[in-house]
Amino acid sequence: MSSEIHQKAFGKYATLVALMGQETALGLMPEHEAFKVVTGKVGSMDLKKVISSVETAAKRNEVINADIYRETHALYHTIIEAAEGVTRGKLSVGEVMRTVGLSFAVVRGFPYEDPNEGEWIAVCFYGTIGAPIKGKEHETLGLGINHI
Amino acid sequence: MSSEIHQKAFGKYATLVALMGQETALGLMPEHEAFKVVTGKVGSMDLKKVISSVETAAKRNEVINADIYRETHALYHTIIEAAEGVTRGKLSVGEVMRTVGLSFAVVRGFPYEDPNEGEWIAVCFYGTIGAPIKGKEHETLGLGINHI
Amino acid sequence: MSSEIHQKAFGKYATLVALMGQETALGLMPEHEAFKVVTGKVGSMDLKKVISSVETAAKRNEVINADIYRETHALYHTIIEAAEGVTRGKLSVGEVMRTVGLSFAVVRGFPYEDPNEGEWIAVCFYGTIGAPIKGKEHETLGLGINHI
Amino acid sequence: MSSEIHQKAFGKYATLVALMGQETALGLMPEHEAFKVVTGKVGSMDLKKVISSVETAAKRNEVINADIYRETHALYHTIIEAAEGVTRGKLSVGEVMRTVGLSFAVVRGFPYEDPNEGEWIAVCFYGTIGAPIKGKEHETLGLGINHI
Amino acid sequence: MSSEIHQKAFGKYATLVALMGQETALGLMPEHEAFKVVTGKVGSMDLKKVISSVETAAKRNEVINADIYRETHALYHTIIEAAEGVTRGKLSVGEVMRTVGLSFAVVRGFPYEDPNEGEWIAVCFYGTIGAPIKGKEHETLGLGINHI
Amino acid sequence: MSSEIHQKAFGKYATLVALMGQETALGLMPEHEAFKVVTGKVGSMDLKKVISSVETAAKRNEVINADIYRETHALYHTIIEAAEGVTRGKLSVGEVMRTVGLSFAVVRGFPYEDPNEGEWIAVCFYGTIGAPIKGKEHETLGLGINHI
Repeated sequence: MSSEIHQKAFGKYATLVALMGQETALGLMPEHEAFKVVTGKVGSMDLKKVISSVETAAKRNEVINADIYRETHALYHTIIEAAEGVTRGKLSVGEVMRTVGLSFAVVRGFPYEDPNEGEWIAVCFYGTIGAPIKGKEHETLGLGINHI
Repeated sequence: MSSEIHQKAFGKYATLVALMGQETALGLMPEHEAFKVVTGKVGSMDLKKVISSVETAAKRNEVINADIYRETHALYHTIIEAAEGVTRGKLSVGEVMRTVGLSFAVVRGFPYEDPNEGEWIAVCFYGTIGAPIKGKEHETLGLGINHI
Repeated sequence: MSSEIHQKAFGKYATLVALMGQETALGLMPEHEAFKVVTGKVGSMDLKKVISSVETAAKRNEVINADIYRETHALYHTIIEAAEGVTRGKLSVGEVMRTVGLSFAVVRGFPYEDPNEGEWIAVCFYGTIGAPIKGKEHETLGLGINHI
Repeated sequence: MSSEIHQKAFGKYATLVALMGQETALGLMPEHEAFKVVTGKVGSMDLKKVISSVETAAKRNEVINADIYRETHALYHTIIEAAEGVTRGKLSVGEVMRTVGLSFAVVRGFPYEDPNEGEWIAVCFYGTIGAPIKGKEHETLGLGINHI
Repeated sequence: MSSEIHQKAFGKYATLVALMGQETALGLMPEHEAFKVVTGKVGSMDLKKVISSVETAAKRNEVINADIYRETHALYHTIIEAAEGVTRGKLSVGEVMRTVGLSFAVVRGFPYEDPNEGEWIAVCFYGTIGAPIKGKEHETLGLGINHI
Repeated sequence: MSSEIHQKAFGKYATLVALMGQETALGLMPEHEAFKVVTGKVGSMDLKKVISSVETAAKRNEVINADIYRETHALYHTIIEAAEGVTRGKLSVGEVMRTVGLSFAVVRGFPYEDPNEGEWIAVCFYGTIGAPIKGKEHETLGLGINHI
């Protein structure tokens, strides 16, 4: 029953992890301790490499089960949603002569009080986007959320 | 000369303001005190209303100069970039039967050490997106950055 | 384990239901009998109305559980994917002066042999798109698929 | 005169050909016998290769006249429309780490009773899209229609 | 045969008509005299109204035959292509709080030397886009080309 | 103060330069003599190469200052806007098996009478887009405008 909504802000938590690291994020949002978290970094002109870095990190750290396609499918769409924020409406990096340097956080758990809502997954990217020259860049951010 | 890059993470600061409020954000990033900030809230199925709420807040609080079109132009594109993150690749809200409830932060200042880089502006939205029914929603986030 | 893939083509089944009706579809693909199906029709210049017609039909016929947000969320994204096929890259109908007349099918069940893959949902639209004048139109089609 | 509309559902026919093969499709829609049809298969992470496979098949089988640019132009836009359905709003395959395995049908003829409406062309893709790993995929579909 | 290409730049001609008026355009490109031309103006926050203004002008002036759907279909896609240039990647005007004030030119004829290439149509928009306040705007332009 | 609008049509000027060359453009719009102009040509299936050709030309000819990131940032977004017109809603060239042959003009200066509006930049592309076969192509055009 969702008549009384009690939802954990696990997207905010994922964002704080990407921005500040897991320790600081958990200090600010200690009630999110039960969520599984994996973090990583990726720099590339190749969006494929950004996607596969997150997938690999999530599978190696067992944030998703690599043997079940529905988990890969859920994560994939969450990554793409986060990448839409990073690229802001043009899901391309190198093809339009940009490069990204990103930290990412993948967070999985039960954000809703109702156990029937099941598990959800959040992916947040934070870093820089710009010309492939040091300093010719600015910050960028993206958050995706999906049921898993 | 940009050979030595020293850049303030004012996009991160704008995000923390949208996520946690200005006081907490400044506690975490005290070196960003010189940036101008305005915050607000908007809930709507109408993207136009989301855009105009940010513009109005930024003009009333003199974060941008309403008499100069280049400032409106810079802010407009920054809002649209942030809205791309919120809507993740489909710049629509009500047209695709979604509603948003958003906090926003607009931050303006000098993020680069080199004064020739001039002023830049960041807009961050954080809140919920979903069906127009309480609880049928999840979090969403978007960040736009532009020179002004 | 997905080492041996045995997948039911329930997207093809949803498409045949939208194109030919459920009886003909089941005659062509009898092994899909266990899938839940709901069909309907909607004609509109308003994409919101198209989306809500499918949602209402799916909830009334208990193809999804209206009390659980994750089911609404899964269906919503499936509808949007199908609408992308219908509108072919511009998720708009009336805003770009088009109207649609669509039959739809929503199909839910277990397409994968491995029970860990759980339930999936497919939405297919088939009908016409064109100028809001009878006959100034051609056929259109879209299929979305998601885990639920 | 289009006051009385009599239109052949050649898009439905193209879809049935892609889903079930030409023989089954013609059994279900025998009044479409006069339409020219070519079918083929293509599997790739490279959207260029998908496009060129359809173009080559259509030219070799004289469904379009390769010497006339307007026919290539009409077919190209029809393929792109069908690919929008396949990729659902992000006209990319390998760039976003997906691979497709598709059957396609190209159908050409006179769908409208009024001979002034001339010839039209339909392209339908049906197959799978997913991670470049066997079984980590689901079905996908797209239909494009254009005058020629 | 397309081994020797002789193509009239009727898209350039359409653009010059939209920018400078038909008389000046024809002075600069006198060899385009045989092309049919219609011009008009439209100002709106409503993209539908922009589209219908061009369609109405083209039909009233018999640049297209309103009784034949393939001509409406060809013109519609040409207008949408031109509108993509005007709106630059977000096919929306009022929904994202912009307004446009546009001159348009529709040009029809035989741009290719080979008569088998048949007739083609070009639509060019030129004007301003911006906030719905006088002066808070800049120029915008779009060109679409299609076979008819 | 923008109560009385006097704006130079420097986007029209950039377009005329791309269409007709700088000399003809200046003959038609002599009051634009004070604007800085650079022109060039680029043919490619690779959008990256198109973007970098314009950037290189603008930097070599000192239309922008290569040492200041805000100028690169302003130019980059202007190029992307112009490329949206060229590609009409799908910011891809080779990935969707198209090739472009383009002339471009970059124009910089003060289009507004009010000196507080500062400098703006326009980029116009004009040329052909089509299959990578001579003659299988039609014209294309795009204009981007930004504050700098």
